[in-house]
Amino acid sequence: MADFLTLYSPATVANMVCGFDVLGFALEAPYDTMHMRLTDEPGVQIVHEDDFHLPTEPARNVAGAALLALLKAAPAGTGFEVRINKAILPGSGIGSSAASAAGAVVGANKLLGGFFSPEELVRFAMFGEEVASGAQHADNIAPAIYGGVTLIRSTDPLDIVPLSAPPLHATVVHPQIEIRTADARQILKQEVPLKSAIRQWANVGGLVAGLLQADYQLIGRSLEDVVVEPVRSILIPGFAAVKSCSLEAGALGGGISGSGPSIFMLSETEATAQAVATAMRTVYEKLGVDFRIHVSTINPVGVRFKH
Amino acid sequence: MADFLTLYSPATVANMVCGFDVLGFALEAPYDTMHMRLTDEPGVQIVHEDDFHLPTEPARNVAGAALLALLKAAPAGTGFEVRINKAILPGSGIGSSAASAAGAVVGANKLLGGFFSPEELVRFAMFGEEVASGAQHADNIAPAIYGGVTLIRSTDPLDIVPLSAPPLHATVVHPQIEIRTADARQILKQEVPLKSAIRQWANVGGLVAGLLQADYQLIGRSLEDVVVEPVRSILIPGFAAVKSCSLEAGALGGGISGSGPSIFMLSETEATAQAVATAMRTVYEKLGVDFRIHVSTINPVGVRFKH
Repeated sequence: MADFLTLYSPATVANMVCGFDVLGFALEAPYDTMHMRLTDEPGVQIVHEDDFHLPTEPARNVAGAALLALLKAAPAGTGFEVRINKAILPGSGIGSSAASAAGAVVGANKLLGGFFSPEELVRFAMFGEEVASGAQHADNIAPAIYGGVTLIRSTDPLDIVPLSAPPLHATVVHPQIEIRTADARQILKQEVPLKSAIRQWANVGGLVAGLLQADYQLIGRSLEDVVVEPVRSILIPGFAAVKSCSLEAGALGGGISGSGPSIFMLSETEATAQAVATAMRTVYEKLGVDFRIHVSTINPVGVRFKH
Repeated sequence: MADFLTLYSPATVANMVCGFDVLGFALEAPYDTMHMRLTDEPGVQIVHEDDFHLPTEPARNVAGAALLALLKAAPAGTGFEVRINKAILPGSGIGSSAASAAGAVVGANKLLGGFFSPEELVRFAMFGEEVASGAQHADNIAPAIYGGVTLIRSTDPLDIVPLSAPPLHATVVHPQIEIRTADARQILKQEVPLKSAIRQWANVGGLVAGLLQADYQLIGRSLEDVVVEPVRSILIPGFAAVKSCSLEAGALGGGISGSGPSIFMLSETEATAQAVATAMRTVYEKLGVDFRIHVSTINPVGVRFKH
């Protein structure tokens, strides 16, 4: 039997404030650990080494579905065994399913000697996202595979724009409540006032310029969401308090990660990101809500391999 | 009497496709010529050297209103004489009023030895735009004063982001028809589908990234407006033909300039921009509509002074 390859697939933040549905970035932590190897038997075998009781049938498993899509384009007879040890809690809003899907296809591609382009890998991994959420979206997948901050200009045709960014420190708090994806979706209005839409795309322009020009103040001013956050934040207890305390602690700005319940804030320095973590802790301790906090730089490379 | 200062205030393209209300750029040509000097008598005198019969009463004149706003913040007793020779046709959709307002305040600031910041000048000039259109918008003013491509992230508070751009050649055609600004406004829907808004801000992100990274193909792909153009373009005869012929001739993309009737296209080379001009000419000759065409690079500095 072939040797196992070990890889680390990162959590990601999608719906980056004003960049709803189009801007996301990768975190250094938390990350899932995956072991993969080629098998003599064609197809996909999934083994879970964690206690999340996720499905192991490949077509119903996020990593499995992504690999089945990849196998259709791979040399005939290819087979993979995947052992998954998730550390990114499913339902936390920091790309747990994307980590499984992205890790699986990046690992498979390594085992196949780099047969596919990053863009093809994103396409395969999107089939995994479809299993998880019923929709093929790429705003977690793309940063998990490309690293850094990515803009999904279009999903059909797929148009991924990696954006360089200055050093940024993210503080992510995951209040341990459940938001049903269906609720997070239904609450969104399908029409938005033109005025709000204009303000939103002005901010997207500002955020992209701020990142590319390494202008922290511009990044901060542009981290404003007048379309989705006012609606979705009501599903997250403590959201307003977390945001105001974080800004007071010096964060540049932030908002809902994915469709929640995690909330992320970006800071210029590690010290500020830690102060933001302290502020977040205080809010949820007062509210009596269990929580996890991650402080992490932006992961510039996406999935990493164990050397 | 003090000597006259001579300046050239450029035409500008606002509502840069997906960047409706927020992105604009300055052209090298056409431009208005203005002569200004300090006067012993406080206040503003306007003299028109052209035949457009624009008002000369300062409060009702675009340049005059901008200067009156500036005078409130200038040393007491300051007075200006402004002689205006417009070459940018009023109502053409390439920032004729903005050229008057921007030229006036930039000239005044030169005469005052650089008393004001560019941002303050934009604020003063916006009072001129208010006289022209009833609204204080900055998306023509800002590129006229800053040059290049500018993002207006916000007008209140004013937040102008100058964007570097690779060499670009604009072809602007002005079909000699009148669009009433009131019509161009009323036709806009005040609500937009969330899906379209997301596509628009994905394109704004792509366009800003394309400009800053000098990625012509990304600029081209991002020059798509799914919100305003489908509605407003019906007011412009030949719009669809101009657009398709221009793209066939090699243009990266383009759309309505301002609220029309001018249409602009951007190209990577001067030769392509000229081919686009030929294509535009053919369309309007067939339609029997009089037109003017300008081929121009992006003006990187805005208002220029005669040396």
